Amino acid sequence: MSDMFGEKLKIALFGESHGAGVGAVISGLPAGFEIDFEAIRRDMARRAPGNSDLATPRKEADEAEVLSGVFNGRTTGTALAILIRNTNTRSGDYQPELPRPGHADYTAQVKYGGYQDYRGGGHFSARVTAPLVWAGSLAKQILAQKGISLAAHIARIGAVEDTRFTQPDAAMLEALSSLPFPVLNPDVQQPMRDEVLAAKAALDSVGGIIECAAVGVPAGLGDPFFDSMESRLSHLLFSVPAIKGVEFGEGFGLASMRGSAANDPFCMENGRVVTATNHNGGINGGITNGMPLVFRVACKPTPSIAQTQQTVNLQTGENAELSIHGRHDPCIVPRAVPVVEACTALCLLDALL
Amino acid sequence: MSDMFGEKLKIALFGESHGAGVGAVISGLPAGFEIDFEAIRRDMARRAPGNSDLATPRKEADEAEVLSGVFNGRTTGTALAILIRNTNTRSGDYQPELPRPGHADYTAQVKYGGYQDYRGGGHFSARVTAPLVWAGSLAKQILAQKGISLAAHIARIGAVEDTRFTQPDAAMLEALSSLPFPVLNPDVQQPMRDEVLAAKAALDSVGGIIECAAVGVPAGLGDPFFDSMESRLSHLLFSVPAIKGVEFGEGFGLASMRGSAANDPFCMENGRVVTATNHNGGINGGITNGMPLVFRVACKPTPSIAQTQQTVNLQTGENAELSIHGRHDPCIVPRAVPVVEACTALCLLDALL
Amino acid sequence: MSDMFGEKLKIALFGESHGAGVGAVISGLPAGFEIDFEAIRRDMARRAPGNSDLATPRKEADEAEVLSGVFNGRTTGTALAILIRNTNTRSGDYQPELPRPGHADYTAQVKYGGYQDYRGGGHFSARVTAPLVWAGSLAKQILAQKGISLAAHIARIGAVEDTRFTQPDAAMLEALSSLPFPVLNPDVQQPMRDEVLAAKAALDSVGGIIECAAVGVPAGLGDPFFDSMESRLSHLLFSVPAIKGVEFGEGFGLASMRGSAANDPFCMENGRVVTATNHNGGINGGITNGMPLVFRVACKPTPSIAQTQQTVNLQTGENAELSIHGRHDPCIVPRAVPVVEACTALCLLDALL
Amino acid sequence: MSDMFGEKLKIALFGESHGAGVGAVISGLPAGFEIDFEAIRRDMARRAPGNSDLATPRKEADEAEVLSGVFNGRTTGTALAILIRNTNTRSGDYQPELPRPGHADYTAQVKYGGYQDYRGGGHFSARVTAPLVWAGSLAKQILAQKGISLAAHIARIGAVEDTRFTQPDAAMLEALSSLPFPVLNPDVQQPMRDEVLAAKAALDSVGGIIECAAVGVPAGLGDPFFDSMESRLSHLLFSVPAIKGVEFGEGFGLASMRGSAANDPFCMENGRVVTATNHNGGINGGITNGMPLVFRVACKPTPSIAQTQQTVNLQTGENAELSIHGRHDPCIVPRAVPVVEACTALCLLDALL
Repeated sequence: MSDMFGEKLKIALFGESHGAGVGAVISGLPAGFEIDFEAIRRDMARRAPGNSDLATPRKEADEAEVLSGVFNGRTTGTALAILIRNTNTRSGDYQPELPRPGHADYTAQVKYGGYQDYRGGGHFSARVTAPLVWAGSLAKQILAQKGISLAAHIARIGAVEDTRFTQPDAAMLEALSSLPFPVLNPDVQQPMRDEVLAAKAALDSVGGIIECAAVGVPAGLGDPFFDSMESRLSHLLFSVPAIKGVEFGEGFGLASMRGSAANDPFCMENGRVVTATNHNGGINGGITNGMPLVFRVACKPTPSIAQTQQTVNLQTGENAELSIHGRHDPCIVPRAVPVVEACTALCLLDALL
Repeated sequence: MSDMFGEKLKIALFGESHGAGVGAVISGLPAGFEIDFEAIRRDMARRAPGNSDLATPRKEADEAEVLSGVFNGRTTGTALAILIRNTNTRSGDYQPELPRPGHADYTAQVKYGGYQDYRGGGHFSARVTAPLVWAGSLAKQILAQKGISLAAHIARIGAVEDTRFTQPDAAMLEALSSLPFPVLNPDVQQPMRDEVLAAKAALDSVGGIIECAAVGVPAGLGDPFFDSMESRLSHLLFSVPAIKGVEFGEGFGLASMRGSAANDPFCMENGRVVTATNHNGGINGGITNGMPLVFRVACKPTPSIAQTQQTVNLQTGENAELSIHGRHDPCIVPRAVPVVEACTALCLLDALL
Repeated sequence: MSDMFGEKLKIALFGESHGAGVGAVISGLPAGFEIDFEAIRRDMARRAPGNSDLATPRKEADEAEVLSGVFNGRTTGTALAILIRNTNTRSGDYQPELPRPGHADYTAQVKYGGYQDYRGGGHFSARVTAPLVWAGSLAKQILAQKGISLAAHIARIGAVEDTRFTQPDAAMLEALSSLPFPVLNPDVQQPMRDEVLAAKAALDSVGGIIECAAVGVPAGLGDPFFDSMESRLSHLLFSVPAIKGVEFGEGFGLASMRGSAANDPFCMENGRVVTATNHNGGINGGITNGMPLVFRVACKPTPSIAQTQQTVNLQTGENAELSIHGRHDPCIVPRAVPVVEACTALCLLDALL
Repeated sequence: MSDMFGEKLKIALFGESHGAGVGAVISGLPAGFEIDFEAIRRDMARRAPGNSDLATPRKEADEAEVLSGVFNGRTTGTALAILIRNTNTRSGDYQPELPRPGHADYTAQVKYGGYQDYRGGGHFSARVTAPLVWAGSLAKQILAQKGISLAAHIARIGAVEDTRFTQPDAAMLEALSSLPFPVLNPDVQQPMRDEVLAAKAALDSVGGIIECAAVGVPAGLGDPFFDSMESRLSHLLFSVPAIKGVEFGEGFGLASMRGSAANDPFCMENGRVVTATNHNGGINGGITNGMPLVFRVACKPTPSIAQTQQTVNLQTGENAELSIHGRHDPCIVPRAVPVVEACTALCLLDALL
């Protein structure tokens, strides 16, 4: 248990930040799908570090080698394995005895008895999401062929909020995916950037919210009692290191609503059953209802900050201070957007197969 | 996939609101545990309808028959099955062609092609949570023996908020569990009740938030990449029909925080590593850190309301109106508290085995 | 792990020989299938004790109550639960300190620390196969609708061998299913019965072999590397207490064959690819090839025999003697035939869904 | 389903015979285990081609690169990935339209619609067992630390039979593992070799039987109803392409035995419960009983033979003839010995974790 996910589409992740590389084995893909490797590269670039003044200046090529499962440019239907070599790893001076607050250093130390690869967070590094984005990008292509489009935008950074999805459609989501800084309201872009740069200047970091939508999702996906669409999506989303909250439709906003407002009335539209509103985010009773699937995730601020922090020395058992050097993201939210999309695509494809 | 959950502790749920009954098969329990059936009955009563003016007046005995897995009052270690007969089912006049907004009626119709048992929501009825509470109550007992306590409280109903857990401990959680209307601040009880009664008077319903805490949880539970403690808990919690949001620690609040505030500094306390704050809800990198596990779930307002609602007639394909009669909860939140506790107990026990 | 099986069609078994009853929860069934309860009853009767002088005279009604998942005579698509009450349990004088040779008494004692329900073998009783036969009989009906027929025959009892399947077809398998003592060559029936009666007279028991065939199985079922059709079938078959060997096609006979004889040459037949022989039992590379699926299982002799046996006293730690009284089968093979069919049907349906 | 196996110890296999390479991701390993890479290399060499006149002369280095999960020579506890590059692949003239009898060519064609990598059998090549042997060899080391030893021998090739395991112990199994041609009775070695060479001379191949034993296995492993030790082992063993039969203890021999002979009487030995005989192969009721675990597998003759064979042309739909050229094993049995050991080690470790 642990590094493998999925029912029909299964994915196994491996790798550490400073080892040979990171990668994935994807099992259960349909055979014969012609892969658009260029599109995958574009998604990988959206996640890659070093592409913006908002992110870490650390550059990584993130070029994936396909080890198996592709023949003549198409999926074979058997396990597809990829490997992304680590290239830009500084053999820094790690201090595994000083766990970094907010990171998995301490919990990994307890769980693995000190044998974990602690360099750069090891298996807990966000770098492990690179092969996830590769897999998710392929899943998006397969979904597109089935008429399903999806994209996410930065819904909030610090105190600055974007507007919410109202009536997402395929064209709008397509356009969103191509933006380097995906927001719905262009006016929030600069204030959001300012939030990040202010945090960076303060040797600090800042959190945010990502909202994701998928359209063209057929009604009927998801299974009671234990594999509701919300269960599946949240399971995968909460694997992503920074994510600490997931809500569907109005989510926590439903807590202060009345049923008469929260219920989405059904109505006919061009001979098709739709809901007049979408407060439930396209899911009723754990099963998709054919309306846009909409959810939001909360990203905590990057735990790596340059400010001095309080910690303990695990060797001496005394309180200690820690300053994290190195190249870190003052805000992980922009780079997390394709990761959220990848999780969504993988879950939807798994449910559709 | 679907009606079965868990890795080592596995649970299969079955049943419909108006069929023979509901029940569960629980596999992987430790052998030799002496069951406190009285304690289970108390938890069942907290979930049962008919116990308060805030809930549906419909009474159900909810007496569970143990079919297997218990011998001389103790668990045998093999599958434990329970059956809760349905006793108070009105053979009402159901209108399956008019899906109730906010319910699974329409999505079940699509998924099962009209063959689902539509009476009272069938398998999608909250009644299916009764055996879940039974199983969770047993899990709580086993956890208690391992020094783990947990309880939930009503954190919000409509606009009224309770205080949050600050430093939960076993005694406080124990006391909380015995309250008929569990809140931390007794002063919010009446305002919350007023919210419910106001919604009821308006032939409406209202939502809320439940906050849950577990203490005594050892550090080291949860597995990267795909079985983080958040992933496991949210998977089970999002199976519960009313739940539309889950957040750990500060959750969505982390979006507007800086890293310097969100990171929980480590410090030594009586020779033990603790964190000075607990904004991450006791989980770092998906693994428990030994601090209280704290999370919140958003419950949507009960979809069954007496007001007339818009829907469609699935037979004629025309818009229609619907009035839901019967005995319904104006607010499901109080009865959902033991369900949230049950999910937590089952997940923790599964991770501990 | 343990009491649950399957990928898409999942089954959870529960129950003990002398508890309230035995049963199953079956998840993942297609919705809308009209169940032929009479046909299920016939299969249940084939497994039930008390129907022949070759079997235990102990009678059990084995009438299953459907607890959920059936509405208006059809499957709902959600979890189908059944319960078979125990009715004929003698509250005998059990001696759990004297483990019966060949039974699970000792291993259960070690595994469950003495808390297992030891009466009549408890959860290890062959009685737990009753709900499996129920589920398998339903699966057979669903398969029949898809053009797949299957049946098993007694291939050997003691020293007496039946002929093997050569070119099984649907009509022949149908006929086989209706025989009270299913053999291909009617001449072996009496000699086989004599083997059983001789063992019975000697206060002993005797083993045998069951051969099963399925026709109409489409090519393409089974998945490399780890879910070959052989893997799936053997996994389920080896759960059945008495089964100690499984072989596909020529099985162990292939060990002494040459490749030129063992390879099944392909040829065209009425525009369809078939194999001229079927030494591989309809499976190549773990995937069905469209030819009849044929396999054999070895059943050990019933461990319960009336002869005095050597054992140990687990309380005193001394060697001891044991005489098993009660009503036991001198040969379990005839009653195991529908169990083998049930396993086959469940595996095939799981692979087809 | 498909390329992933295991409950606690999970393994995902990938790769094709003529692609970039083959490999595995192993999840759930204990942290801190110091790997003896030299011992793994020795096991890999036992499986590797080109080491004997009985095997294919095709040489492959089979050097595995560890991509993740090892730090400072020890397991980290997170996913361990290995990659074995393909080096000696002849870009031969493949004829995918002519499926080779006995191979997965035809079934893969049906299942994957012609998109499978057909070169050298692709994902169905026995080469995919190389990473399995690597993983199993590591598992053997971990088991050895827990006092469990295991080894297999060639029990039969063609008509020549080795003796069977009687009372295997750790020293004997250790010695067996180091033999280039592992048999219990040295006198059968030359006759077995002669069988292989005779088949080779006849442009043919020959099958055989492998018997495996594990000692030091604690009582109590395996779970009813669906995860008996036999179920788990057979599931993994039947994934190996050549294996068509699995039997535990006396296996099919039990069919002609009486209960009084087949039951293994319990007796005390040095204060420990043992069985006087071991006809059940160390497993009662699906659970290990502390006696040696003993089972046998049937290997079919290598399907690749140089003789002309009958097949069909999938493009023209006509009967055709096929001659397989290239370097093939006249008998796969010797090279399959470490594969059977690997399956055994992985299953036992999974059950022990």
